[in-house]
Amino acid sequence: MKITLYIAASLDGFIAGPDGELDWLSMADSPGEDFGYNDFYNSVDALVMGRKTYEIPAGEAEWPYPGKPSYVLTRQDLKTDRDDVIFVSDPVQNVVESLRSQGFQHVWLVGGGELIRSFLAQGLINEHIISFMPIILGAGIPLFPPPNPQQRLELISSQQFESGLIQAQYRSIATA
Amino acid sequence: MKITLYIAASLDGFIAGPDGELDWLSMADSPGEDFGYNDFYNSVDALVMGRKTYEIPAGEAEWPYPGKPSYVLTRQDLKTDRDDVIFVSDPVQNVVESLRSQGFQHVWLVGGGELIRSFLAQGLINEHIISFMPIILGAGIPLFPPPNPQQRLELISSQQFESGLIQAQYRSIATA
Repeated sequence: MKITLYIAASLDGFIAGPDGELDWLSMADSPGEDFGYNDFYNSVDALVMGRKTYEIPAGEAEWPYPGKPSYVLTRQDLKTDRDDVIFVSDPVQNVVESLRSQGFQHVWLVGGGELIRSFLAQGLINEHIISFMPIILGAGIPLFPPPNPQQRLELISSQQFESGLIQAQYRSIATA
Repeated sequence: MKITLYIAASLDGFIAGPDGELDWLSMADSPGEDFGYNDFYNSVDALVMGRKTYEIPAGEAEWPYPGKPSYVLTRQDLKTDRDDVIFVSDPVQNVVESLRSQGFQHVWLVGGGELIRSFLAQGLINEHIISFMPIILGAGIPLFPPPNPQQRLELISSQQFESGLIQAQYRSIATA
């Protein structure tokens, strides 16, 4: 099972504004260009996200990941009518084990920063696909809130888009 | 006069380790590859840096920028035998005015984070050339320590190197 962190960040390393603002992400939008999102999305068979990351699309009219099991890590007692949203309060390591035992092949780690840190700390991220937006956001929620263990990555590919976005794909290198 | 921030950063946005460590920068070294450094260096006619950034090469056997005027912004009373190192305690805006009036064409803003913030706050950076190293450093001195004004950038070019470094060149977009 492969776990991929697939996320967009500002040049100063934020994934959202101070109050979770995501409007700045649309600045790179260009007609007919999805930055490989559909291909990536079709390649995953489960999603993992933190509670705050869940609450953003959960508040919208349409849930963006219908039919794909979305595991939301939270200690809160949340409810949903959707049967493709599963709330789990187990430690990260146990959640990953459970996903593996269920036979999932490719899991998208959606965010946010705190959950990414837990996954990083336990060496659970196999692949990072980071889209660098052409903006200094100034303040916000960090992609990699320190401290984290130092982690070398191997660059697999990078792509520059017309609208100024750079998407880079990295593979984690096993640490000693 | 153009001011260019030319700097390397980790994927989590650090330009140095917690105690100024720079050893991790050498991980992308590859024989015969200077990542465009010489061309860039030849294109600048003055350098600006903060005191801590100055002290790293100043402690080495050989000063790395001989013959190019290096302006070191500091309130401390520093001394040097070099006549290409100039200590200035004026506000950033005044230093930039002075450089302009002296006829410099292209100034390299070397760092570090605090000086970059002052330049950003006053909209004084015209170009950003950022080399993203393939590493999550985990902790350190931030490239863009928040808070900063939000700043859109225009991507001019990006280049991927064999050793996993991605170098991106951005132009500042005038803000309203």
